[in-house]
Amino acid sequence: MTILYYIDIVGTMVFAISGALTAVDKKLDFFGVSAVAFITALGGGTLRDVLIGSTPVGWMNDLTYLLMIVIGITISVIFRKIVQKLRRTFFLFDTVGIAAFTVLGLQKALLIGIHPIIAVMMGMVSAVFGGVIRDIVCNEIPLIFRKELYALICLAGGILYVIMESYSIAPMVVILTTFTFIAIIRVLAVRFHWKLPDIK
Amino acid sequence: MTILYYIDIVGTMVFAISGALTAVDKKLDFFGVSAVAFITALGGGTLRDVLIGSTPVGWMNDLTYLLMIVIGITISVIFRKIVQKLRRTFFLFDTVGIAAFTVLGLQKALLIGIHPIIAVMMGMVSAVFGGVIRDIVCNEIPLIFRKELYALICLAGGILYVIMESYSIAPMVVILTTFTFIAIIRVLAVRFHWKLPDIK
Amino acid sequence: MTILYYIDIVGTMVFAISGALTAVDKKLDFFGVSAVAFITALGGGTLRDVLIGSTPVGWMNDLTYLLMIVIGITISVIFRKIVQKLRRTFFLFDTVGIAAFTVLGLQKALLIGIHPIIAVMMGMVSAVFGGVIRDIVCNEIPLIFRKELYALICLAGGILYVIMESYSIAPMVVILTTFTFIAIIRVLAVRFHWKLPDIK
Repeated sequence: MTILYYIDIVGTMVFAISGALTAVDKKLDFFGVSAVAFITALGGGTLRDVLIGSTPVGWMNDLTYLLMIVIGITISVIFRKIVQKLRRTFFLFDTVGIAAFTVLGLQKALLIGIHPIIAVMMGMVSAVFGGVIRDIVCNEIPLIFRKELYALICLAGGILYVIMESYSIAPMVVILTTFTFIAIIRVLAVRFHWKLPDIK
Repeated sequence: MTILYYIDIVGTMVFAISGALTAVDKKLDFFGVSAVAFITALGGGTLRDVLIGSTPVGWMNDLTYLLMIVIGITISVIFRKIVQKLRRTFFLFDTVGIAAFTVLGLQKALLIGIHPIIAVMMGMVSAVFGGVIRDIVCNEIPLIFRKELYALICLAGGILYVIMESYSIAPMVVILTTFTFIAIIRVLAVRFHWKLPDIK
Repeated sequence: MTILYYIDIVGTMVFAISGALTAVDKKLDFFGVSAVAFITALGGGTLRDVLIGSTPVGWMNDLTYLLMIVIGITISVIFRKIVQKLRRTFFLFDTVGIAAFTVLGLQKALLIGIHPIIAVMMGMVSAVFGGVIRDIVCNEIPLIFRKELYALICLAGGILYVIMESYSIAPMVVILTTFTFIAIIRVLAVRFHWKLPDIK
């Protein structure tokens, strides 16, 4: 679906902005900020492609992704104060970005013949591991391992997708339902501070 | 050898438990604990497969590995106190796991046509780098880089394997000897606190 | 060009020494020092090869690289005090190493059919990410993300290469010009303390 592609590239830009802002907080220089923006935006999809053996990794075949990241870095550096005030707006883009990354990552893995259960994991990896690698590079324990629960939402959305597909539901419906499910549940999770129980 | 396969999947579960316990100590949430368990159990073999170009990485072709990890996580979360008391027992499983990972990793690399010297390294990587990646994700300098010496035992076992094979010794004998060598030396090393000299 | 190959293997040894010295400072044991030396020397090229899908990764096809790293580790451990006094000399080798890594990495990516813009990035990744991975493993925020600017010099050199090549300039001239450009600018940058502006 073409619309998914557009959400994907906008999501890439939003992830780049999120990475750049984190790097600025860590007092990195211009190269560090750019590198962390790239890693955050492309890390999840890159890890998925390397694991499933789809190389050269996806973003190397479409320069649009690089362009969107460069735009994201430019916005972050020039309009940093404004961007930080608009966090609420960005949160919405971020959420649709995660939903798109999950669906597209899952589809790519299925297309290559990966088992559906692993493909669901790869959808989640696409959406979440850019942030994981960003945190590792910035010398933090990954945030998503400590308090955000959206990885589980991506997994749940992926399972929904695979189940619907097994019932031969029209692809368009499968995609839209999964996408909407992930986006809405994530908004609710953040709005009502849902969190996973600690293990003790 | 089929027996090696069974040791491999049990070793995977034991590595998952070790990862989960580390993650619990780090106060990660349920997703973080699960993610670190996966990374610890599969990280070494995954890195080996990516480096030698055997993708999709091995565990994607056999869901048994995922199942064993899920069991490992469940055991860690539900019976945590008991597991921690049984560390001695687990140490034995861990040791046979490392021996199996080394032999299987080495064989896989040789099968693909990797030079024996590199294949020996890949055997060690399979056994050891799950723990290395676990420590990096948990924001620690890898333990094995500081005080455990079992990486060298894996390398020594691998060299033994390659030498025996070059003398056309029966595969079964080569495998059993290597496996036993690694397991016994590791037990001795831990029992008698062997360690590498510091560099100063 | 054969001369580039020799600079490449000497550069590999110098990177191994740099990694080993960092690891010694971090109080790692002999295995840790060796592992960090390998990672520093081979990490950049390995990451490039994995991303562009050229596996088994390059150094697995030529044992000379391993040999040079072993020599580098031996030198670091035995002649550590002398090596630390010779930092100035090593800096020169390091600089020609970076220039060679950039050119060779760029060429490899172009050869595989990667888009020139991405190939320029891959040249920089080859030269720089060994140090990035070294710092991550040693639990530091990568130095190059904070104050060295040679990543940008590698990118600039790569762009120069691609532009010259597009004008059908003789390959030998393209290579020598790029190589010299990177080496000289880096020496100037360090000599005159050029640095990137902070982002605030």
